Amino acid sequence: MAIKRSKISVIGSGFTGATTALMLAQKELGDIVLVDIPNMEDPTKGKALDMLEASPVQGFDASISGTSNYEDTKDSDLVIITAGIARKPGMSRDDLVNTNAKIMKSVAKEVVNYSPETYIVVLTNPVDAMTYTIFKESGLPKERVIGQSGVLDTARFRTFVAQELNLSVKDVTGFVLGGHGDDMVPLIRYSYAGGIPLEKLISKDRLDAIVERTRKGGGEIVGLLGNGSAYYAPAASLTVMAEAILKDQRRVLPAIAYLEGEYGYSDIYLGVPTVLGGKGIEEIIELDLTDEEKAALDKSADSVKNVLNILD
Amino acid sequence: MAIKRSKISVIGSGFTGATTALMLAQKELGDIVLVDIPNMEDPTKGKALDMLEASPVQGFDASISGTSNYEDTKDSDLVIITAGIARKPGMSRDDLVNTNAKIMKSVAKEVVNYSPETYIVVLTNPVDAMTYTIFKESGLPKERVIGQSGVLDTARFRTFVAQELNLSVKDVTGFVLGGHGDDMVPLIRYSYAGGIPLEKLISKDRLDAIVERTRKGGGEIVGLLGNGSAYYAPAASLTVMAEAILKDQRRVLPAIAYLEGEYGYSDIYLGVPTVLGGKGIEEIIELDLTDEEKAALDKSADSVKNVLNILD
Amino acid sequence: MAIKRSKISVIGSGFTGATTALMLAQKELGDIVLVDIPNMEDPTKGKALDMLEASPVQGFDASISGTSNYEDTKDSDLVIITAGIARKPGMSRDDLVNTNAKIMKSVAKEVVNYSPETYIVVLTNPVDAMTYTIFKESGLPKERVIGQSGVLDTARFRTFVAQELNLSVKDVTGFVLGGHGDDMVPLIRYSYAGGIPLEKLISKDRLDAIVERTRKGGGEIVGLLGNGSAYYAPAASLTVMAEAILKDQRRVLPAIAYLEGEYGYSDIYLGVPTVLGGKGIEEIIELDLTDEEKAALDKSADSVKNVLNILD
Amino acid sequence: MAIKRSKISVIGSGFTGATTALMLAQKELGDIVLVDIPNMEDPTKGKALDMLEASPVQGFDASISGTSNYEDTKDSDLVIITAGIARKPGMSRDDLVNTNAKIMKSVAKEVVNYSPETYIVVLTNPVDAMTYTIFKESGLPKERVIGQSGVLDTARFRTFVAQELNLSVKDVTGFVLGGHGDDMVPLIRYSYAGGIPLEKLISKDRLDAIVERTRKGGGEIVGLLGNGSAYYAPAASLTVMAEAILKDQRRVLPAIAYLEGEYGYSDIYLGVPTVLGGKGIEEIIELDLTDEEKAALDKSADSVKNVLNILD
Repeated sequence: MAIKRSKISVIGSGFTGATTALMLAQKELGDIVLVDIPNMEDPTKGKALDMLEASPVQGFDASISGTSNYEDTKDSDLVIITAGIARKPGMSRDDLVNTNAKIMKSVAKEVVNYSPETYIVVLTNPVDAMTYTIFKESGLPKERVIGQSGVLDTARFRTFVAQELNLSVKDVTGFVLGGHGDDMVPLIRYSYAGGIPLEKLISKDRLDAIVERTRKGGGEIVGLLGNGSAYYAPAASLTVMAEAILKDQRRVLPAIAYLEGEYGYSDIYLGVPTVLGGKGIEEIIELDLTDEEKAALDKSADSVKNVLNILD
Repeated sequence: MAIKRSKISVIGSGFTGATTALMLAQKELGDIVLVDIPNMEDPTKGKALDMLEASPVQGFDASISGTSNYEDTKDSDLVIITAGIARKPGMSRDDLVNTNAKIMKSVAKEVVNYSPETYIVVLTNPVDAMTYTIFKESGLPKERVIGQSGVLDTARFRTFVAQELNLSVKDVTGFVLGGHGDDMVPLIRYSYAGGIPLEKLISKDRLDAIVERTRKGGGEIVGLLGNGSAYYAPAASLTVMAEAILKDQRRVLPAIAYLEGEYGYSDIYLGVPTVLGGKGIEEIIELDLTDEEKAALDKSADSVKNVLNILD
Repeated sequence: MAIKRSKISVIGSGFTGATTALMLAQKELGDIVLVDIPNMEDPTKGKALDMLEASPVQGFDASISGTSNYEDTKDSDLVIITAGIARKPGMSRDDLVNTNAKIMKSVAKEVVNYSPETYIVVLTNPVDAMTYTIFKESGLPKERVIGQSGVLDTARFRTFVAQELNLSVKDVTGFVLGGHGDDMVPLIRYSYAGGIPLEKLISKDRLDAIVERTRKGGGEIVGLLGNGSAYYAPAASLTVMAEAILKDQRRVLPAIAYLEGEYGYSDIYLGVPTVLGGKGIEEIIELDLTDEEKAALDKSADSVKNVLNILD
Repeated sequence: MAIKRSKISVIGSGFTGATTALMLAQKELGDIVLVDIPNMEDPTKGKALDMLEASPVQGFDASISGTSNYEDTKDSDLVIITAGIARKPGMSRDDLVNTNAKIMKSVAKEVVNYSPETYIVVLTNPVDAMTYTIFKESGLPKERVIGQSGVLDTARFRTFVAQELNLSVKDVTGFVLGGHGDDMVPLIRYSYAGGIPLEKLISKDRLDAIVERTRKGGGEIVGLLGNGSAYYAPAASLTVMAEAILKDQRRVLPAIAYLEGEYGYSDIYLGVPTVLGGKGIEEIIELDLTDEEKAALDKSADSVKNVLNILD
């Protein structure tokens, strides 16, 4: 049997989807199909072609194509979902949730129709609920449906800490549980610079400020851009999760996973430390939490459940 | 004396400028300052911060900052200019040229004020004339002011040939002289797949079609995107030129260089094969041209001169 | 079905085999099994472990193990054969050929026993004949059994040309047909710097000297080392061929392929331009040769046949 | 002023020196000069040339040359010292120390003569004493003379932990103080998998076994190889330290640094956590130690002093 490149479909060709496609191709993780709705087909093809034209100069081999036809995603090894709308002024939260949930249902159906054994990584917000929706609708095993939030949250945290200490980002780590953004539960005691707990290196005040800045990290970018939201760091986060799966790396990464009793929760997708490899979520790592951490995680879980209850 | 990272300023924080900043940072070529006009300062800061937040996940060490204050570009080793407007419907060509020339003059003055010994690579269109403007205004030696067009044109050509033959882009090369796009003078006899001249592998008809598609390559992307123009492949092209200079690689790359007699032209910036290294344009490679090629290059040079004549 | 890393077995843990294992791992092309004979098992394990201990610092994920038990190579996607003896003073050429052929037969049997659908790349000298032996003994389809010589020969040629012209090796290409070393048939007219034919850039005398130095390139290293032969460039050459297959890149690379009429030869393994991808040798590219080139290739083919005739 | 590549001289062209040269070149950290004694000049040139011939295939631009003439190291930005003899059966420890100290003195003199402002990283054993010798003899500021041991020790530790937990090496960290090998003071409480303290993931017995294996890590490789010692992981360790300096990364890395009161020691080179960047050792990070850790570090320091006392 011939050796074939992996095939990765990225649903949603906005800035995040397109940047993710670029980063996947740069790492030669597989051939890329960038998918959007029919009236976005031409721009999607345009971005894919522009990226492909970068390949001789950047030195990567990958087919990159744009489409609005899910048939082109057939036999994808991995599907990354960035599709969905952002909350607009005047839009109620319930409207946002239900609109994106409707999109997720449609996407899930199409994806699984053509790739019944794929892995799916979800970015669309509110990500915990949207990952849950994809899981239910796709019928895929739980370890194959994964949400992204913790890699991005820790990336922002690590950036701020590296700046604070003027150290290489390579040597700073962070650790979060729970939901994205405001619902994030940072575990500072598991966050380090060069292996040294941050509490020994940064004052409590400054650390609190960094945590707060991380929580609002998405909003900070939205505020600066004025029009649109972050896409470089989200795309990098999706890419490292894709790499862990496609290269079977068994990375320890925070991911939104389906819980069946872990941490005391069931039938919910929530951000937890996982082992990510060729089987998708291969393990969920359970940690002893302090009462304060457990309370924060409960709050985060409630928040996710509230969103799930909105769903029609 | 301590070892310091290179400093690279990218003028213009649109899609091309921002993507160039990302690619420079990914290659750890230096610290990046992304510059735009004051009323774009916040979005520029937002893009820079988002990129920086990708660094812990992508694994690169680089400072990336956004600004509208040229003082922040002080002592840049390299400046990449992507600033300028795109031609809008109803705008005359002369208006475009004069508007961008005005921008170039202002940028050149600011850049040289803070980095009197920098290298400059220009992307702004019409690129031959804009590079000339930067050269004249900056007062920098000719080998330090370089325009980009041939790397991008050959990247597109290579992409189309690789698709045609279903081969790795790594093994396809192309060769162009002259201006960008329509004025491009392709040297098919110096273009190969795996070292084999393309004329032996592809029919004349198909090759002609590929050349024509390359000429219109920018327009193809504009047409597909509907709103905006290519930025991935242009950014990759700028990045490889930056790398050649900052790593002193003596790459053989097509570049827009100031000619003083080479190929029979003087006091003009035109696309020619060059050796690009730590001294900027270290050599201009002169080739014997066929009569047909020389005629096409003359046309290309006339075209550049016509634009220069528009300049106020 | 879970995603699994590729598995690559490298037979022969001498300098070339070990360096190949390192380079494969650095590129995260798969998990590596380094195999040698039983009385070399401990050193083989030692090299594998030392390499593995480099992985946290070099940042690659790969299992690397040493063994003398072919069972550990089970289900290899690719097998690289570097085993064999080097010619010692006083050893007749026939003895060398027969000794290595015996080794090849034993290796082929073991390899195919555990990996009946693998690809095999052979380096052992005399490589044309040893590749032929592996092909016959393994029973694998011809496109799955491939010999290395041209990538190394052109690498040396490119190095010498880059030095001569003081240019980046990235922009210099070379082209060879036929056997390794003395039997090499260089196609100077298909060799370039920045796409420009070398004949336009280097005098005939100097080019002849470079070709001659390339022919003797292996001997030059042997002479300098005093004890042993080249391994860095051979390992790099094997690695790029492995990458082309495992990443299904359809690279245009010179390789030793089984000919059935191509170039007028049959039932012989000879160095020709090929397309290397996920199916192994996917194409053999046939070129028109000048009379001189054809004569040189005939001589090269005769040379290979003479060695085949020595085989018991 | 033109941009120039960094220049790195590697003293000692044995397996470690040569592998270090390769890894430096692969990362395009600069041009490499590989230096050995006059009667090893040809093999040194042979290794350098073989490596250089790998460059077109591996895709790196670097000059790599071999020499026995220190004049060729002129104006090195960084010098890496791997020269020296290994302890042979029947050789007393004092003989080893004095022989290598004599070599260090001669090397230091030559190096500083041609590169009076260089950085030096030392690997030669016993490394704490040899780094001290280089420091004293070179007259360079303390932050420019650095010894390697902790990067290697933690690399081995991380490898063993990653194997134990079947996780990516990318997510496992380790932390050591003090001398190399037997004198190593592991700080398990600062060692993690995915940020989780190892004590929560691995039983005390297994952790003790892993620490013990790390201590004897060099000996394990020596035992397996039968003839010679580890070089892949040592070379990778030197390379990452070189990268931190040459790219001014401010990495947090364990290094052998000159202490003037830190941790209670003076006028001694000892393994401590440092910040390594463009100024060399930019900071020494002082940690609170437990009594047990402090006692172990005292023992390690005594050990280094005992070696220093041997020096003639």
